[in-house]
Amino acid sequence: MARPSKKSEIVEAAAYLFSTKGYHATTVRDIAERAGVLSGSLYAHIANKEALLLEIVRMAANQFTTALDPIVHSNLMVNEKFTKAVRAHVGVITGSLDGARIYLDEKASFGDQGRQEVLDLRRAYEDLWQELIDQGIAGHAFQIEDPHLARLLVLSALNGIHHWYRPHGRLTPDIIAARYATWLLRLLTS
Amino acid sequence: MARPSKKSEIVEAAAYLFSTKGYHATTVRDIAERAGVLSGSLYAHIANKEALLLEIVRMAANQFTTALDPIVHSNLMVNEKFTKAVRAHVGVITGSLDGARIYLDEKASFGDQGRQEVLDLRRAYEDLWQELIDQGIAGHAFQIEDPHLARLLVLSALNGIHHWYRPHGRLTPDIIAARYATWLLRLLTS
Repeated sequence: MARPSKKSEIVEAAAYLFSTKGYHATTVRDIAERAGVLSGSLYAHIANKEALLLEIVRMAANQFTTALDPIVHSNLMVNEKFTKAVRAHVGVITGSLDGARIYLDEKASFGDQGRQEVLDLRRAYEDLWQELIDQGIAGHAFQIEDPHLARLLVLSALNGIHHWYRPHGRLTPDIIAARYATWLLRLLTS
Repeated sequence: MARPSKKSEIVEAAAYLFSTKGYHATTVRDIAERAGVLSGSLYAHIANKEALLLEIVRMAANQFTTALDPIVHSNLMVNEKFTKAVRAHVGVITGSLDGARIYLDEKASFGDQGRQEVLDLRRAYEDLWQELIDQGIAGHAFQIEDPHLARLLVLSALNGIHHWYRPHGRLTPDIIAARYATWLLRLLTS
């Protein structure tokens, strides 16, 4: 396996610290220390703290979208797509908890330009989920009166996992994904 | 109607600013200005910024719990309780959006003691929801394999509303509550 690049180690260290201590309480020195580089040489990899925050969101958004896109555009039956989509989403959250938390919840710390990029990245991912739900309705597999509100409920339920998930707990990613997929399909298919 | 006290005006101003600008970017002077008091006289009402944050969480927790407790402990049928409970929760979120956001999402900004109190307040409210779901299972109205995980899904779905709810939009509190209650009951009752 390739050694992770210095930059990705720095991004990972920042994600951990922003997610646990908070963005404002974390200093560039903290990040450098955790990543095992000197503060000065950290700036060779990244412009400033906000750029790091944005890089974390981009990486998480890319993970979520890369996992979901091929499922939505596959030839599977829509119920099977939905089950796989839930598994993919749970996999990204539980596998990259710090990055996912920041992608899903960080709001106040971005400047105007950064905030717009984050909203666009989130929107692109939400649109994929909407497309999946709309496929289910078009094919009469899903019966739901308000597909937009249904997508909001489904994604809220799935995104909430990052608030309570604990690695090595009773609720493994497999258990969460299997139950959530069953239950949410029940909701969508009446 | 009684005039709101100066303290509750200060808490409301702080909730608005913490929720929109973020806790760290908000100064005591900002809060005083929005509440229409001098920074100096603000300290007659509140010890410091963290005390204000805690006060916001206490008020929101009290609203959520006061709305839900009588429903859970009423003599209604459990499906009707659940529908009313969803309406109560949606009502508190949409009626006190800033306070609810901070109660639900603020984590990093509390000191150790504050954080423990916030966790205890959230836990007490979550326990009421767990009690309601357990009542449904005990009375065979709900069929669900994992009541604890089901409660996590239900509350995640309901709490997510604060991320996307816009006052005066198409999705009014009544519409959200009616559809969420129907859909989540479908999930719980298979």
